[in-house]
Amino acid sequence: MPRKIEVTELILRDAHQSLMATRMSLEDMVPACEDIDNAGYWSAECWGGATFDSCIRFLNEDPWERLRTFKKLMPKTKLQMLLRGQNLLGYRHYEDSVVERFVMKAAENGMDVFRVFDAVNDPRNLEVSMRAVKKSGKHAQGTICYTVSPVHTVQGFVNLAKQLIAMGADSICLKDMAALLKPQPAYDIVKAIKEQCGQQVLVHIHAHATTGVTLVSLMKAIEAGADIVDTAISSLSLGPGHNPTESFVEMLEGTGYTTELDGARLSKIKNYFATIRPRYQEFLSNITGVETDIFKSQIPGGMISNMESQLKQQDAEDKLVEVLEEVPRVRKAAGYPPLVTPSSQIVGTQAVFNVMMGPYATMSGEFADLMLGYYGETIAPKDPEVLKKAEAHAKKPAITCRPADLLKPEWDALKKTAAAIEGFNGSDEDVLTAAMFPPVAAKFFPARKNGPKNLGKDPAKVKADAAAAAVAAATPTPAAQDSPLKGPVTYGVTVNGRKHKVTVAPG
Amino acid sequence: MPRKIEVTELILRDAHQSLMATRMSLEDMVPACEDIDNAGYWSAECWGGATFDSCIRFLNEDPWERLRTFKKLMPKTKLQMLLRGQNLLGYRHYEDSVVERFVMKAAENGMDVFRVFDAVNDPRNLEVSMRAVKKSGKHAQGTICYTVSPVHTVQGFVNLAKQLIAMGADSICLKDMAALLKPQPAYDIVKAIKEQCGQQVLVHIHAHATTGVTLVSLMKAIEAGADIVDTAISSLSLGPGHNPTESFVEMLEGTGYTTELDGARLSKIKNYFATIRPRYQEFLSNITGVETDIFKSQIPGGMISNMESQLKQQDAEDKLVEVLEEVPRVRKAAGYPPLVTPSSQIVGTQAVFNVMMGPYATMSGEFADLMLGYYGETIAPKDPEVLKKAEAHAKKPAITCRPADLLKPEWDALKKTAAAIEGFNGSDEDVLTAAMFPPVAAKFFPARKNGPKNLGKDPAKVKADAAAAAVAAATPTPAAQDSPLKGPVTYGVTVNGRKHKVTVAPG
Repeated sequence: MPRKIEVTELILRDAHQSLMATRMSLEDMVPACEDIDNAGYWSAECWGGATFDSCIRFLNEDPWERLRTFKKLMPKTKLQMLLRGQNLLGYRHYEDSVVERFVMKAAENGMDVFRVFDAVNDPRNLEVSMRAVKKSGKHAQGTICYTVSPVHTVQGFVNLAKQLIAMGADSICLKDMAALLKPQPAYDIVKAIKEQCGQQVLVHIHAHATTGVTLVSLMKAIEAGADIVDTAISSLSLGPGHNPTESFVEMLEGTGYTTELDGARLSKIKNYFATIRPRYQEFLSNITGVETDIFKSQIPGGMISNMESQLKQQDAEDKLVEVLEEVPRVRKAAGYPPLVTPSSQIVGTQAVFNVMMGPYATMSGEFADLMLGYYGETIAPKDPEVLKKAEAHAKKPAITCRPADLLKPEWDALKKTAAAIEGFNGSDEDVLTAAMFPPVAAKFFPARKNGPKNLGKDPAKVKADAAAAAVAAATPTPAAQDSPLKGPVTYGVTVNGRKHKVTVAPG
Repeated sequence: MPRKIEVTELILRDAHQSLMATRMSLEDMVPACEDIDNAGYWSAECWGGATFDSCIRFLNEDPWERLRTFKKLMPKTKLQMLLRGQNLLGYRHYEDSVVERFVMKAAENGMDVFRVFDAVNDPRNLEVSMRAVKKSGKHAQGTICYTVSPVHTVQGFVNLAKQLIAMGADSICLKDMAALLKPQPAYDIVKAIKEQCGQQVLVHIHAHATTGVTLVSLMKAIEAGADIVDTAISSLSLGPGHNPTESFVEMLEGTGYTTELDGARLSKIKNYFATIRPRYQEFLSNITGVETDIFKSQIPGGMISNMESQLKQQDAEDKLVEVLEEVPRVRKAAGYPPLVTPSSQIVGTQAVFNVMMGPYATMSGEFADLMLGYYGETIAPKDPEVLKKAEAHAKKPAITCRPADLLKPEWDALKKTAAAIEGFNGSDEDVLTAAMFPPVAAKFFPARKNGPKNLGKDPAKVKADAAAAAVAAATPTPAAQDSPLKGPVTYGVTVNGRKHKVTVAPG
């Protein structure tokens, strides 16, 4: 009997976050939910990450309502979310009672599996949320952010796994956000976790596809004992996204492993999202192939384009190579944090500053915080010289405690702030929304009554509009003296089968 | 010490054949040759397949001159070609002396490695060309076309390998043209060849990437002992093409295998072809992701689009599913040929006929020939009923001999035909060109003096031209009675920064 490998489908969260800037509307997901629910997935990742922000910022959609809808439409399948530990889904640390309340509310609204991670792999930033998940009776998945550096070792990752298990983790996720996880390390890490933590420990692999090697890594991880993998249905897979679900299923044929996913359901899901994908053309990632330069720089693709645009603003695009070489030095100075939101942006921006203005001549507030321990403890010690500069810049001392220990209870204040926003509905969910995204919520609450916006567009209409725009731009403006026009005249113009009225007036 | 895995780079042949309809001009390859020659490849595939046809049909380029140029620019690296056995590069069987002469001339002009295959895996169709390669002192690679069917077994492929080795093959290629080769069969076949034929037998894996699983298959083939793999530089990889060279290199890091390819050279090759690819936008394959339906139908992607267009011509697009279901039945009737040029087209067309007009009510001449053994012997016996119909249709008997045994010496006649074409240069190479592509050569020889055409286009110019065309299509044609124009008037119209003169005349 082949061993069953479980699969988490990413189509409803990370697939569209990675490939179409998190813009997919709930409306475009609903028709696929029945098939997803019946395909035999271990879980459907469908919430958290950037989806919460995107819902209220771009889609005028209440993310809590989205969650409840998923719960209703997918009763058989565990719903899964990505939670940034003490940051929740926001960009700062929250005080413990806020974290607890968020987890409780997410569980109440239907969440089953909480994948909890921290950008610098500091387990203290996961403690409270992990405990809250356990308390709510849901599945607490402890996460190891995978990265590569001179100080990251297989044993180091295993030690982190041990800490997460001690915290009560129901499973361990090895999260490879930059597609750096090669087959041999995948094998070695999973093997070592299983050997040292017990074969019964569930190991779940999340790997992006960007470098082109990670489907092989999934195979090797499975050979080492991995239990669950993340994939995305093929019509919204690859590039900076994930390995295709159907390819994963087929890959295992004849091996000692199998998925038991329903091929006919997968086929329907695939065909459905193949019709949705072109509607989001304007948001689609330009990357469709693979990018192996990431192995050299260890810099995720999104971070490079960020740095490029920062340099462009300063007319210094020629400095990109220098900046790319500076990144590993900055990373070393900061104690080798993994490069993932928000550490990737913090390190990248500092590398740009260093190249443009000299090493640490200027420092971002966030970088100073990272140096001073306000994001948590990094794996290696900080550079003492840079640390001194950070103290001077931030005018505050380095800390070694858990960063959230410095926070005072804030629920009441958050509630008061939320209640002052027009359109606040009085729920704890709304307080949490406003707490995580204050300025966005201030616009969203009053606009919520207008209902969700679907940013998808009929590709045929997009094409016709572009043609019409080209025509409008080209409508002749004759020089007045040559013009035979005495007044405006309107023509019926057909472009690509679409009729337009074009009015030409004397220049 | 890790075991060294050799790599054949496909960028100069199969990569652009698969992804840009074989349209890349020699001019666009030349700048990369020095880097390819110094990167450490086992060989550079650069000739044969559809490139010969494309050179003379579309590019006004002499393929023999292309070969000599490669030899000059890549003196360190073995040049490799794909040769369709007794078909050479054409679409019929040639008499033995023509086959011998072609191989001799290819070797003289610089070819080092001849990958020889036959669409129905009949070794008798490879004998003469393999012997000719050996005689010329070059590398004769015997090929197994991989396919999946109820009668294809690991042992069957191994038996074919044994026959190829007995013929003097210097290496064995397992050729997976439709990306059907899954990891476990890849492992099993390579393992069995090595065990039964000897560990010293060089095994070379050629797999397309279309289904998304074959990089894993390369890994498993290597674990089973494979020696050489085919890859394409990442900027022209994936989709219906091949696995990316750089991903392959990175994948092996830390394993017991390594490539020793020069990363800096690969990077230069990649960046160079990233600038060339967009120039061929109009020829680029639409498929950028993966397609796993191929596993169900075992029908290569190109064949499906062929059948779709045949059905469309008959207003019967709704019959596609029926046709896809008919293909395996036709294949069974024909003795389970692999589906590769030309068998894929022959089987696909017959499936369309059967659905539209009833089973074998009509039969193509080519399908009758396939049934009657004129393409060689297939692995399984033919359906006797269909065989009878084929005999009736073709008014000739089934044969069991080697098809080319029926051919009479034809070199003198071919030479005479070639000599009659304007622009014939008197060489044996020209005779061979004319022999393989008679009507195309008849146009190419007289036009050759005009020099090569490069079909690549500056993407910025393509965009500007498209905008100009939209404007031209939209130039108002006012109804005569409303028109204020008494005669033509010309406007200066600027679209996307490009100036156009647009003349408007009364309708």
